[in-house]
Amino acid sequence: MSTSIRLAIDVMGGDFGPRCIIPAVARSLRQIPDLHVLLVGDAEQLDSLCKKHQLPNGRFRCIPATQTILADDSPASVLRGKPDASMRLAIEQVRDGHADGCLSAGNTGALMVLSRSILGTLEGIERPAIMAALPVAGKSCYLLDLGANVDCSALQLFQFALMGSEAARELSGVQRPRVGLLNIGSEVNKGSQRVREASELLRQSEVLNYIGHVEGDGLFRGEADVVVCDGFVGNVVLKASEGLATYLQAELRQALAGNLLTRCLAPLLRSALQPMVRRHDPGCYNGASLLGLKGVVVKSHGGADQQAFAAAIDRAAQASRSNLPQRIAQRLAGAVAPAP
Amino acid sequence: MSTSIRLAIDVMGGDFGPRCIIPAVARSLRQIPDLHVLLVGDAEQLDSLCKKHQLPNGRFRCIPATQTILADDSPASVLRGKPDASMRLAIEQVRDGHADGCLSAGNTGALMVLSRSILGTLEGIERPAIMAALPVAGKSCYLLDLGANVDCSALQLFQFALMGSEAARELSGVQRPRVGLLNIGSEVNKGSQRVREASELLRQSEVLNYIGHVEGDGLFRGEADVVVCDGFVGNVVLKASEGLATYLQAELRQALAGNLLTRCLAPLLRSALQPMVRRHDPGCYNGASLLGLKGVVVKSHGGADQQAFAAAIDRAAQASRSNLPQRIAQRLAGAVAPAP
Repeated sequence: MSTSIRLAIDVMGGDFGPRCIIPAVARSLRQIPDLHVLLVGDAEQLDSLCKKHQLPNGRFRCIPATQTILADDSPASVLRGKPDASMRLAIEQVRDGHADGCLSAGNTGALMVLSRSILGTLEGIERPAIMAALPVAGKSCYLLDLGANVDCSALQLFQFALMGSEAARELSGVQRPRVGLLNIGSEVNKGSQRVREASELLRQSEVLNYIGHVEGDGLFRGEADVVVCDGFVGNVVLKASEGLATYLQAELRQALAGNLLTRCLAPLLRSALQPMVRRHDPGCYNGASLLGLKGVVVKSHGGADQQAFAAAIDRAAQASRSNLPQRIAQRLAGAVAPAP
Repeated sequence: MSTSIRLAIDVMGGDFGPRCIIPAVARSLRQIPDLHVLLVGDAEQLDSLCKKHQLPNGRFRCIPATQTILADDSPASVLRGKPDASMRLAIEQVRDGHADGCLSAGNTGALMVLSRSILGTLEGIERPAIMAALPVAGKSCYLLDLGANVDCSALQLFQFALMGSEAARELSGVQRPRVGLLNIGSEVNKGSQRVREASELLRQSEVLNYIGHVEGDGLFRGEADVVVCDGFVGNVVLKASEGLATYLQAELRQALAGNLLTRCLAPLLRSALQPMVRRHDPGCYNGASLLGLKGVVVKSHGGADQQAFAAAIDRAAQASRSNLPQRIAQRLAGAVAPAP
């Protein structure tokens, strides 16, 4: 029995497709000695790119796919149409036991509906969730859901907390992850009915290290390792944070470029700021996990470059190595939520 | 008939109380020649501080209040208790026609319930909303609601758009403010049921310059002058943005301090960055408007310093001068929302 990690990778997704993904894979194969990959996509492109980037024999296999899911394909249409889509075939590798996990930089909605349909959700899980890490003070703060579920029940929020806690333990190695519920006030009676109910469920649970409500600014004070919210709020907060960080970076660059002296000092400033920039590089935190499925599915940012895609491969390998879905299933079985 | 602006100011609210607020008032009285103020608070403190800061005779009057609303007083308790609270008396000055608007740095929930109870909401308005400006590229992007309404109907979101549009016109002088609806995708069919319904109402309205959905990152790309969302989302996004900006500022400071050369260059860097810092100084954008009431009510940040409190006085004076509540009432009368 092999203990190597086998990942199925949809090479057709994302803004740059195989030309970016294959060199990222080559890099990951060098860095992770027990990694094996199944590359799913256009046969011709795969053939020439795998040769060009000298992928090591015996550690990759190409699976031809004649169709590609596009960014604007509706989730409903991909369920019925495109039976030979690279994304679908990659997920099927997991279902059929040929891969321990899969990875795509394509259409998020399509990846979620295909994964649910092909792999199924874990027993007891109402709805899977999307989770990503925010870089805060050199650590990860895991936020979920990020848009899979617009409206969430208290029980769903409770399950997100369980899944996020297990994922933080496996991915960050935190022993008792601090779990917070995103809210508009730290007092117990604040927030919507559903958030208050979820808070009650979390407070009663013995398997979680629940620290109570976390406000928006608490996200960036490192108050919690896992923060739970509905997909509407999570998506807006994540994108607003990315938007603000990009905006402030551009403003800073412009301010320094507008001054003759600081312009001359640019190389010095760049080297002084490099450790900070590196600690917060979104590429290093690339790879959102689809949690609650009977298999490891990771979504890379569509605009990921080589380094960022390699980070997503890392994340998928980590989740596969620790068999995260099974751990979540065990945790769920041991933590029956009180009736809401 | 006098055309001067008369503001009632609760001097007891906020983290620093009259010791910060009275010098801010002195500053505003110097800068706004037709401003008159009614200062509501502890008689003894008012007396000594007004003398100390040499407030000009004839342009201020003190109204003694023996009670103060505290940060943790529940909204319900302030309605029944504390009849002589400075916040309550300040709002009553507006109701009784002694002031054109009022201003407090105290408990936001209390300010909202007291304002609704004392002034009443405008005819046709389902619920008042809290609106503040985000500084984006030297302009204001007005965001509402910021926490007064956790769950909002489509009609409420539509009314927030109307109120925000009118406020942006009066406060920023934008002729046809671009109004966006915060959502998790730019496509028409994205988001919750209520957001989709609100989008339909907005699209049918002829009085608004509705530009469609705005995503989280769109907030900081200057896509809209007014962005509408429910109070839960607005509060989380505003606080997360403040939290992230503070966090990145601290990280930047630390990175520059950790390098001997950049430490020596600190004065140069400070002066190069000063225009950028000033353009985004939260103090300059202090002053959230409570919209939908029969009177001008402005909430200052509790932690506002003198300069920030003076900015909130400015905002209250501007809203009073343009008689914002009356303008909103006129706009509401002219824009009957189609039945949802």
